[in-house]
Amino acid sequence: MKGQDLYNRAKQIIPGGNHLLSKRPEMFLPERWPSYFSKSKGCQVWDLDGNQYFDFSTMSVGTSTLGYANDTIDDAVIAGIKSGNMSTLNSPEEVYLAEKLLELNPWAGMVRFARTGGEANAVSIRIARAAAGRDKVAICGYHGWHDWYLAANINDNEELRDHLLPGLDANGVPKGLRGTVIPFTYNDLESLRRVINENPDLGVVKMEVVRSFEANTEFLKGVRSLCDANNIVLIFDECTSGFRETFGGYHSNFGVSPDLCMYGKALGNGYAITAVVGRREVMESAQSTFISSTFWTERIGFLAGLATLSEMEEIKSWEIISRNGKKVKEGWQNIANSNDLRVTISGLDALATFSFDDMHLERKTFLTQEMLSRGYLAANVFYPSISHHDEVINNYLEALHEVFYSMSKLDDDELIEHIKGPICHSGFKRIN
Amino acid sequence: MKGQDLYNRAKQIIPGGNHLLSKRPEMFLPERWPSYFSKSKGCQVWDLDGNQYFDFSTMSVGTSTLGYANDTIDDAVIAGIKSGNMSTLNSPEEVYLAEKLLELNPWAGMVRFARTGGEANAVSIRIARAAAGRDKVAICGYHGWHDWYLAANINDNEELRDHLLPGLDANGVPKGLRGTVIPFTYNDLESLRRVINENPDLGVVKMEVVRSFEANTEFLKGVRSLCDANNIVLIFDECTSGFRETFGGYHSNFGVSPDLCMYGKALGNGYAITAVVGRREVMESAQSTFISSTFWTERIGFLAGLATLSEMEEIKSWEIISRNGKKVKEGWQNIANSNDLRVTISGLDALATFSFDDMHLERKTFLTQEMLSRGYLAANVFYPSISHHDEVINNYLEALHEVFYSMSKLDDDELIEHIKGPICHSGFKRIN
Repeated sequence: MKGQDLYNRAKQIIPGGNHLLSKRPEMFLPERWPSYFSKSKGCQVWDLDGNQYFDFSTMSVGTSTLGYANDTIDDAVIAGIKSGNMSTLNSPEEVYLAEKLLELNPWAGMVRFARTGGEANAVSIRIARAAAGRDKVAICGYHGWHDWYLAANINDNEELRDHLLPGLDANGVPKGLRGTVIPFTYNDLESLRRVINENPDLGVVKMEVVRSFEANTEFLKGVRSLCDANNIVLIFDECTSGFRETFGGYHSNFGVSPDLCMYGKALGNGYAITAVVGRREVMESAQSTFISSTFWTERIGFLAGLATLSEMEEIKSWEIISRNGKKVKEGWQNIANSNDLRVTISGLDALATFSFDDMHLERKTFLTQEMLSRGYLAANVFYPSISHHDEVINNYLEALHEVFYSMSKLDDDELIEHIKGPICHSGFKRIN
Repeated sequence: MKGQDLYNRAKQIIPGGNHLLSKRPEMFLPERWPSYFSKSKGCQVWDLDGNQYFDFSTMSVGTSTLGYANDTIDDAVIAGIKSGNMSTLNSPEEVYLAEKLLELNPWAGMVRFARTGGEANAVSIRIARAAAGRDKVAICGYHGWHDWYLAANINDNEELRDHLLPGLDANGVPKGLRGTVIPFTYNDLESLRRVINENPDLGVVKMEVVRSFEANTEFLKGVRSLCDANNIVLIFDECTSGFRETFGGYHSNFGVSPDLCMYGKALGNGYAITAVVGRREVMESAQSTFISSTFWTERIGFLAGLATLSEMEEIKSWEIISRNGKKVKEGWQNIANSNDLRVTISGLDALATFSFDDMHLERKTFLTQEMLSRGYLAANVFYPSISHHDEVINNYLEALHEVFYSMSKLDDDELIEHIKGPICHSGFKRIN
C-alpha cells in the first residue's frame, strides 16, 4: 500500500508524521489507513494506489462544505493566480472580503485576516488583551496550539481534558504563563461566575458557541451579561461552527453577539483563510500592538473566501449540509436500533458525531476497517458537504448497515479478533 | 485614484489598513501610493487604474525571487488545485518537500511546515523550549509578531528598536512573559556571553544570520560554541536570508550549522509556505507538546515549494538575483556620486538597501514620488528577482539618475516643497 509506505517515510522526517492530529492515520486505522490522497472531487477521494473512496468522515476536518475541488471556487482562485497572487501592493480583495463579513456580522465594525485557525485565535487574544488591559482569559472549547491556550495545562495536564484532549503536556510553553488561562464548563454559568470572582484581573472570555452539547440561549445570554457586568471582552470561536447551520456565525441563532468572533475552516472551502471580526472599539486596539505577517497579504485566501461566500449564499449551503447531516444521523440511529447496538449521537446536524456506548474504540476501528474495504472513508464523525447527494448517502447507510450487522453477530473477543491491525488512537500520542 | 479610494475604505474596516506593515502605503508615499494591484507578472505590477509599474522595491517583501506569476510554479499549483487541494487524507507533497529540504540541509533530520513566518517562528520556539527544558530566549533580529518575541518589549518599548522597530508597545502580550526574551547585538559576541552569564536558565538563542551588517564567520562560530558550551538550542531564522545567496540557508557559507532553521518568504515564490528544519534530536521534542493546525495540511504550499525549489536549482536563481542586486547597488553608488548625494548602501546583494546620509525620509519620499510618476515602484530597498533583466535595470537606473539629479538641484526647503503629500513613515504608527 503506497500510502502506508509513504507514511512510514514521513514518520522518520516529520515529527508526529503529519501536520494535523485529526488527519493522523492512527486516529482512523493504524497501519492500514490510505493516509495520502492523489485526487479529491466532490465527496470522493483517491489514494496513492488509485483506489476511490467516498468521504463520510470529516471532509478535511470540515473545511470543504461545498465539496472538494468545487469548480466555482477553483475558477476564481485560478483566475487570481493567472493575474498574479502577490505583489508589493496589497490585494483589493482583502477589503471586499472584509466588507462581506461585516454584512454577515452587523454587530461588528472591523476585520483582520490570517491563514490558519491557530493564528486567528492568537490574533483575537492579542487584540482582546490589549483592549481589556488585563491578561487573564477564561476558555471553554478548543482554540488551537498556541502558547496562550496550552498555558491552561501548565499546572495540570488534565485541565484541557474536556476542551482539547486528555494527557496533553504543555512542554515548551513558558512557565510565566501559568495561571493566565482558566477553563470553565459549557452550560454551567456558575463555573464562569466562579472563575470571574476568583480572578478580578480576568479580561477575556473565549468560547465555542456549541460543542457536542446543545447550545443554550439562556447560558449564552448569561455569559454575555457576566462579561458586560465585568467589562470583559467576549470572543466566540466559530472556526468550526461558522457556516454550518447559518450563513455566518451560529451565535446569530441565539440573539447574542460577541465582541470578537473568529471564522475559519469552511470560510474558503479548503483554501487557507481565517478571519477575526469584531466591534470597532475593540478591534482598534490592534493598532496599539504589532500584528503583521507577509503571507496574510497573499491573494488566494481572499479570492477563495469571496467565491465561497457567494456560492454559499446562492445555494443556501448551510441548509443543504444540515439536511444531509440530519439524514445520516437518523440513519445511524435506525441502523444501531435494528442491530441492537447502543450509540450516543451528538453535535450539530452539519457536525454529526456518535460514540458506541461500549467498546467504543474497538467498534470504531472495526467500522473504519470494514467501511474502507467497501470504499468509504468513515469513522464516527460525519461533516457533510453539498456533494453528499441522497443516493450517495443511501449507499453509505446500506454499507454501514452491513457492518453494524456483522458487528452485532460478534462477541467482544470475536470483534477484537476481526480487527486486522492496532486499535485507533483516541487522542494525542507519540508516533514512532 | 482608485487605489487611494479603496485604501480609505480599508482603513475604516481593517485596523491598520492592511495586514503587513511593510506593505502599508504610508511606508512608501502617504496619500499617493497606488496601494492595490489588479495584476502582477514578472517584475511588473498593474494598479486598480490600469497603470503599469516596474517593481524596483521589495517584490512583495522578497517572496517572489522567480518573478510574479511565474508560469512554472503556477502551472504546478493549478494542476494541484484541479486535482483537489484538500481532503481528509494528507498531501503526499508534504513528505516530498520535507525530503528536498533535508537534502539542502544535510545537518538536519526532520521538518515541520506552517503557512506564515510568524507561525514558523512560534513553532521553532515551542520545539526549542521543549527540547531545552528552559524558557528564556536570547534574540538578535526580527522574528515576527507573536507573544514570545514581543515579550522583549514588556519592560521597555525600546528593547527591539534595533531588531524590529522603534516605539513598539507590547500591548496585549501577557506580563508573565516579562524577562523571557533578551536581545543581544550582532557581531558582538560579548553581548551574548553577558546574556548567557546573567541568565543561567537561558535555553534558546534565535538570530538572523545576516542583517544590514556583513555576516561574520568568527562571530557565527563563536555563537555556536557558546550555545554548545551551555547546552543551548541555536536557531537561525532564514525566512528572509534563505535562497538569496545560496540554494538554501545563507549559514552554509560560513560552515556553521544551527539546531533549527526557518525558511519562508522565497520558499514558495509568493505562495504561503514556511518551514522549520532541524536536527532530529531537537525536532523530536515536537512530539512532547501539541503543534497542529488544519491549514498546514493544505496542498498548495507544498506544491509551490517543490516547484520553486526545482526551478531555483535549474536556473541557479540565487546567482541571478545576486548579480541583479549587485548591479543596482553599483548603480546607486555611481548615481549618488555623480550627483554629489551621500548614501550608505548595505545588505546582501539580493536584499539591497541604502539610506541618504541626511534628510533620509524626505529624500526617500521625494524619490518614491518621482519614480512613481516615471512608472516605477521604488524606494530605498531593492529585492531583485530573475525578471529584472539588464534592460529593465538600465532603464530604472536612468530614471533614478534623473530623480537624483533633480534632488541635487534642490535645497532642503525646495525639496520639501516639491513633495506633494506627507513624508513617508519610518516605522510603526497608528493609522487613522
